[in-house]
Amino acid sequence: MSEVVQVAPFDFVIVGGTGDLTMRKLLPAFYQRFRAGQIPDNARIIGLARALMTPEQYRDKSEQALRGFLPPETLCETTLSAFLKLLDYVHLDATHAQADWSELISRLSDTSRIRVFYIATAPDLYTQAAESFYSQNLITQKSRIVLEKPIGTDLKSAEEINRNIARFFPEHAIFRIDHYLGKETVQNLLALRFANPMIERSWNCNTISHVQITAAETVGVGSRGPYYDVSGALRDMVQNHLLQVLAVITMEPPITFQASDLRNEKLKMLRALKPFTPEDVTENTVRARYIEGQINGEPVDGYLEDLGSRESDTETFVALRTEIRTPRWAGVPFYLRTGKRLPKKTSEIVVQFRPQPWPIFTKPPRPGRLVIRIQPDEGISFVVSAKDPDHDGFELREAALDVSFSDAFRTRYPDSYEHLLMDTVQGDPVMFIRRDEVVASWEWVEPILEGWQQGLRPLETYHAGNWGPASSGELLKRDGFSWHEDMD
Amino acid sequence: MSEVVQVAPFDFVIVGGTGDLTMRKLLPAFYQRFRAGQIPDNARIIGLARALMTPEQYRDKSEQALRGFLPPETLCETTLSAFLKLLDYVHLDATHAQADWSELISRLSDTSRIRVFYIATAPDLYTQAAESFYSQNLITQKSRIVLEKPIGTDLKSAEEINRNIARFFPEHAIFRIDHYLGKETVQNLLALRFANPMIERSWNCNTISHVQITAAETVGVGSRGPYYDVSGALRDMVQNHLLQVLAVITMEPPITFQASDLRNEKLKMLRALKPFTPEDVTENTVRARYIEGQINGEPVDGYLEDLGSRESDTETFVALRTEIRTPRWAGVPFYLRTGKRLPKKTSEIVVQFRPQPWPIFTKPPRPGRLVIRIQPDEGISFVVSAKDPDHDGFELREAALDVSFSDAFRTRYPDSYEHLLMDTVQGDPVMFIRRDEVVASWEWVEPILEGWQQGLRPLETYHAGNWGPASSGELLKRDGFSWHEDMD
Repeated sequence: MSEVVQVAPFDFVIVGGTGDLTMRKLLPAFYQRFRAGQIPDNARIIGLARALMTPEQYRDKSEQALRGFLPPETLCETTLSAFLKLLDYVHLDATHAQADWSELISRLSDTSRIRVFYIATAPDLYTQAAESFYSQNLITQKSRIVLEKPIGTDLKSAEEINRNIARFFPEHAIFRIDHYLGKETVQNLLALRFANPMIERSWNCNTISHVQITAAETVGVGSRGPYYDVSGALRDMVQNHLLQVLAVITMEPPITFQASDLRNEKLKMLRALKPFTPEDVTENTVRARYIEGQINGEPVDGYLEDLGSRESDTETFVALRTEIRTPRWAGVPFYLRTGKRLPKKTSEIVVQFRPQPWPIFTKPPRPGRLVIRIQPDEGISFVVSAKDPDHDGFELREAALDVSFSDAFRTRYPDSYEHLLMDTVQGDPVMFIRRDEVVASWEWVEPILEGWQQGLRPLETYHAGNWGPASSGELLKRDGFSWHEDMD
Repeated sequence: MSEVVQVAPFDFVIVGGTGDLTMRKLLPAFYQRFRAGQIPDNARIIGLARALMTPEQYRDKSEQALRGFLPPETLCETTLSAFLKLLDYVHLDATHAQADWSELISRLSDTSRIRVFYIATAPDLYTQAAESFYSQNLITQKSRIVLEKPIGTDLKSAEEINRNIARFFPEHAIFRIDHYLGKETVQNLLALRFANPMIERSWNCNTISHVQITAAETVGVGSRGPYYDVSGALRDMVQNHLLQVLAVITMEPPITFQASDLRNEKLKMLRALKPFTPEDVTENTVRARYIEGQINGEPVDGYLEDLGSRESDTETFVALRTEIRTPRWAGVPFYLRTGKRLPKKTSEIVVQFRPQPWPIFTKPPRPGRLVIRIQPDEGISFVVSAKDPDHDGFELREAALDVSFSDAFRTRYPDSYEHLLMDTVQGDPVMFIRRDEVVASWEWVEPILEGWQQGLRPLETYHAGNWGPASSGELLKRDGFSWHEDMD
């Protein structure tokens, strides 16, 4: 049933090879692709880090991590043992051009192979790492670089990173990763929207009433406090993940699915977002910080306690109302929100249809909706009004038509990193963020940041375990709507 | 969860009270509605038949039938025992006005109660039965009569029955039953079509490519041979069930769900059907008779052997191609077929969408469809093109979004007779066929019958266990389509 084409042999260099992201996400994703037969036996995954460690020790550490993070039903001893043979380790601080690069250079002697540099470190080291590869003459025709978020903290710093990386790598070889774009359901949106005329022809302001995009976490700031406190929810989640999802939902049909065509269309949407005026910042944004409360019945601290600080102006929750100035989306509000210490972990898109304004039924039918769950349980539900078979008369009830891939295809949902890592190896940047998209996103976000700095919207608080402050609901209530969890 | 409103007490008189339909369908349906709390304890169901039998014997016979036909999980001894108390029996040939009616008359002394006469006998007795009720002065203000199909064998005989019944009952009290209209999924079509703007706005020739309606049986003619041989598939199935389903699928939105509004809209569709010219009969009809073959691996006889005759011109299979001359359905072919001794028992509607004519995907997406299964397992599937998660690239695969009521509502699907019997008690004829609908259906069917008599389309044969003759597939192939089971 599975149709997998093996990729060409590659050398995959992970800067930050002992870190959490590598162990928790990258190696398990490589394992799954190896298990599926997509990765050849002579591929190599080379961890780089400052820790003194032999390749053997690195494989041991990786094995432990894989045994811990892989779903047990996918753990096969033979496969695991074969997979570990792909792993290698070089003790090297890649941000130092003066370090001893000879070991890595000898590992990468075959310049004809695909070469991927994955920078899984703090963003302020991106430029130095790229520069080191360049000065060590490691960047070949078949090399690409993968950058994790965040790309900068504002337009200026993002462009600085972009400019610097561009000195060493051409744009087509720069893979700015956003793992939301690797999600099966987000990619499936493209199929559903563009392969099904019934959906495509309804995908506009005539049929759609509004769209909600939510990325909710139950966790607090945890150990990321120092990073998070200079970032905040708007920079950390909205500027990248939520705007990318918004672009995929709303974009016009691209002429092809090639990277340039698809990203041109996403860019158009990012540029068509209504810019925030100072009045808009006051009226159409909500920013808040969690204070003590309860998650799953357990008491938890507030943000300041988590941070170990007495003061902060950083939001852990943001809600926005915006519009897209195109004929397709005229008058359709888009509501975005994200936050920490919310009641449940969920990322979802709710596309709400207009109600049927036609009084043929005893009670007016509730407007249907398409719910796209990005995580944790990926899936798509088309919620319709159907006849209630329990009622002896003709009454309506909501029924969900579910695209459940685990049912439909009896397969495991690939993790987003599985898609994206293989894309980097294959050199297909279609699901990665282009430089001009980063620019457009920051251009839209900056007036909000500035307005907040000017005090146009005060920082509110919310008890951990709530869906943010009440003003978040007000954003929708004004338009006659409510957030998904409040729809009854 | 169940919302059931009890109906007023009623006397339900079944002419043919010992027959197969009564035992297999009517009594189990009454039992379920009683069990659901919809039927009061003082309702009465009075069987009439020519058999000499006491009420006690009738209850015994009914109890046996119920134990045999009810799903075991719905059989409750207490409920069954209480239900049997509703049953009564009168030994009477209701087609004879000269018979002794005194017993029935004494049973029906309370003229303020709802009174339903259900004629479950051969159609040539309808008029006599109705006349008897009239002459015995049994027809009250709250009386209605329920007629089973077939209403006549052509326009003339149907109108004769209609005229005769109309002498004794007003049209609003005449309930011409078509059990397809009582099916949960057929009624659900109304909800799905009219309560969901995304579906309603796609429900036209811009989005829909064609529609297939199939009613397939695996059984042969069985003991119904003598009746069937003067009827045939066109009269037995197409003129009533298939045309009614077609009308529900295609009708314009009614202004209300009241009987007159909804049936006006169905009537419009029946009248908008393109009339068959002699050329059409030759080109757009297929008629055939089954010959020996295999069903489920078992050899079975042909129709003539089943009939015990050496000659017959009766079709056991019919396939038609037609169109509806309205702006909504311009250019959309409708394919109807029904037959005996086909490979599986299934009644379904397939609404096929137009393909997406847009070459963005590697392989063009297959056109989606809405599949409405009427029996045996009622349900609705929306088949879309979705991303194939098993493929390492971006490939499409079909996925079905299912409205499964047994899942969604954790309830038993009510049998169509449950809906319809309660409608007759409540006096709501919305899901019954109005006189002018019968007329319009026969007006459309007659040119086909006449053309066949004139030999414009020869009777073909097909081996039992096949989907009719090859020419059935040709009807669609000419238009570039194929029947549902042949879609790959």
